[in-house]
Amino acid sequence: MKEQKVINVILSGGSGTRLWPLSRENKPKQFLQIFEGKSLYQHTLLRNKELVDEFMLITNEKQYIDAKKQADELAINIAAKIIEPIGRNTAPAIALAALSVEKDTILFVTPSDHMTADQLQYQDCVAKAIALAKNNSIATFGIKPTEAHTGYGYIEYEKEDVLKFWEKPSAKDAQLFLEKGNFYWNSGMFCFKASVFLEELEKYDPKMLNACKIAMPTIKNGLVGMNAMKKIPADSIDYAVLEKSQVIKTVPSKFYWTDLGSFDAIINYFERGNQVDNLQQISNEKGSNFAFSNKKIIAAGVENIIVVDTADCILLLPKGKSDLVKEVYNSIKDSNNKLI
Amino acid sequence: MKEQKVINVILSGGSGTRLWPLSRENKPKQFLQIFEGKSLYQHTLLRNKELVDEFMLITNEKQYIDAKKQADELAINIAAKIIEPIGRNTAPAIALAALSVEKDTILFVTPSDHMTADQLQYQDCVAKAIALAKNNSIATFGIKPTEAHTGYGYIEYEKEDVLKFWEKPSAKDAQLFLEKGNFYWNSGMFCFKASVFLEELEKYDPKMLNACKIAMPTIKNGLVGMNAMKKIPADSIDYAVLEKSQVIKTVPSKFYWTDLGSFDAIINYFERGNQVDNLQQISNEKGSNFAFSNKKIIAAGVENIIVVDTADCILLLPKGKSDLVKEVYNSIKDSNNKLI
Repeated sequence: MKEQKVINVILSGGSGTRLWPLSRENKPKQFLQIFEGKSLYQHTLLRNKELVDEFMLITNEKQYIDAKKQADELAINIAAKIIEPIGRNTAPAIALAALSVEKDTILFVTPSDHMTADQLQYQDCVAKAIALAKNNSIATFGIKPTEAHTGYGYIEYEKEDVLKFWEKPSAKDAQLFLEKGNFYWNSGMFCFKASVFLEELEKYDPKMLNACKIAMPTIKNGLVGMNAMKKIPADSIDYAVLEKSQVIKTVPSKFYWTDLGSFDAIINYFERGNQVDNLQQISNEKGSNFAFSNKKIIAAGVENIIVVDTADCILLLPKGKSDLVKEVYNSIKDSNNKLI
Repeated sequence: MKEQKVINVILSGGSGTRLWPLSRENKPKQFLQIFEGKSLYQHTLLRNKELVDEFMLITNEKQYIDAKKQADELAINIAAKIIEPIGRNTAPAIALAALSVEKDTILFVTPSDHMTADQLQYQDCVAKAIALAKNNSIATFGIKPTEAHTGYGYIEYEKEDVLKFWEKPSAKDAQLFLEKGNFYWNSGMFCFKASVFLEELEKYDPKMLNACKIAMPTIKNGLVGMNAMKKIPADSIDYAVLEKSQVIKTVPSKFYWTDLGSFDAIINYFERGNQVDNLQQISNEKGSNFAFSNKKIIAAGVENIIVVDTADCILLLPKGKSDLVKEVYNSIKDSNNKLI
């Protein structure tokens, strides 16, 4: 029997606004080369390259330029690409990937903008997920929650079995999940056989699958035809398939995982001893402050301030409340969009 | 009778560290062109030029370059200069000025780094001081205190008369002065006939006067000889003369006066409606923050922070406690003196 090919499908889509002004519309979070000189996208390539046979990139036209350049910097080949003229969320992106490969190909789907540590544990988990995928399961990666985060999906489990998939919960539900204890964070990584995913999509969203099939022949040099893409309904893989499917398994994942989805998350990663370029901790008699800047930062008599210093603007936030950047971004967007 | 000449003797000496990192060793506070594009030194020239016949500058070699350049920008002539190879505080500087002019010349001595407003009131006070000087008094300018500031000298008065001169007081004394009510801040501006000052110095510090007389013939192109300068004892005009002299009068001064000797003082000046270049007030739902920067500053969830953004470093301070910069400066001085 021919060994099944394993492809890392990397999703690089939405332009995260949560790290604004470090990230900008034209330089999304996954391409910021601030983690020892490399971007989260590059770290994704590096940690997976020994674990898979090929890379496939699903992105948009703008981001493809950065993605190609940064892969070239690492001398890593992106064997296949699907370029979406408009975003339709994760389910159609993954469906197009699954339709473009041989049916028994194993797809290891990952975001482009997360970070992991503990590479041996990570490799072990990915191997387990690939084994589950070969056995016709859809494998997910369950991360033990450390807080009642409302920005992640949750996986309710009992021993090895997934009881239920929960999309991003309310603060109240997130707290409940944390207290109950048998809930994982859904890391947004999945592993399955292309045919298995397509069968499940056929079951739970046949219209989406059909629209994706119609779109396939419109793909030219990776780029999906605009009209066909417009006809694909938008939905996340979580809603379209995972919440309903009965073939889901989860791999309890002991490796460190973070989506670095806020300045606080980056600071937390930094405080664990990881290097973040230009991130400085400024301690004084009152406490600590943190700054993203290539200048020397000095702070006296103030604590728990986050300074984000960029070429054209400086943002101040309180540590622990860096989510406030969302409101700032929205207000700036209207009044000062050259900073966006 | 020949009309007496009035000379504005501008003292530009010490490199203020209280506005670091905006000011630097090589760019002291008085030369920062941030007040509608002009420096405090330039504002000093501008507000006095119609009130006096000539300018005399007392400074050091380094600062003379900036002072000359900035006077040239305004097409204002500095008729005379005394360049001190080493600083000896204010009393010797003023004595050298007094020795270098005809004895009945009126010297209007001012710092180079203060700011006033209400020009008509100011002119009126200077005219009164000149009149007192012509009448053989040493005129001082009494500013009504608005807080128990420990950074200024105080003038205890009764009606028109000076009872006593007080050098920078303790916090306790400053509070007492404020409560008593008959105390002015000493603005550091003085007006007297050259001969009167020299007579008083003869009375209270004849050694200093003598050393200054010996130094006079060593002056070449404005520059005082180093050996002679070294032999002049250092002292402030306050200690050497003002605290002891019986010919002191004070002009109650209603004009706005500030030494802009801290970031808080500059913010106070700004909040009175004056423009300070690149000073921004950043208000949010929590309160206000202030930033010196040519970048756009945004603050969310933080209040009462002062940000001082310069080409190579950024300082954070709490509003109302900008005096902390002194400690910061001292610690930086040892560890990172390229920022000084």
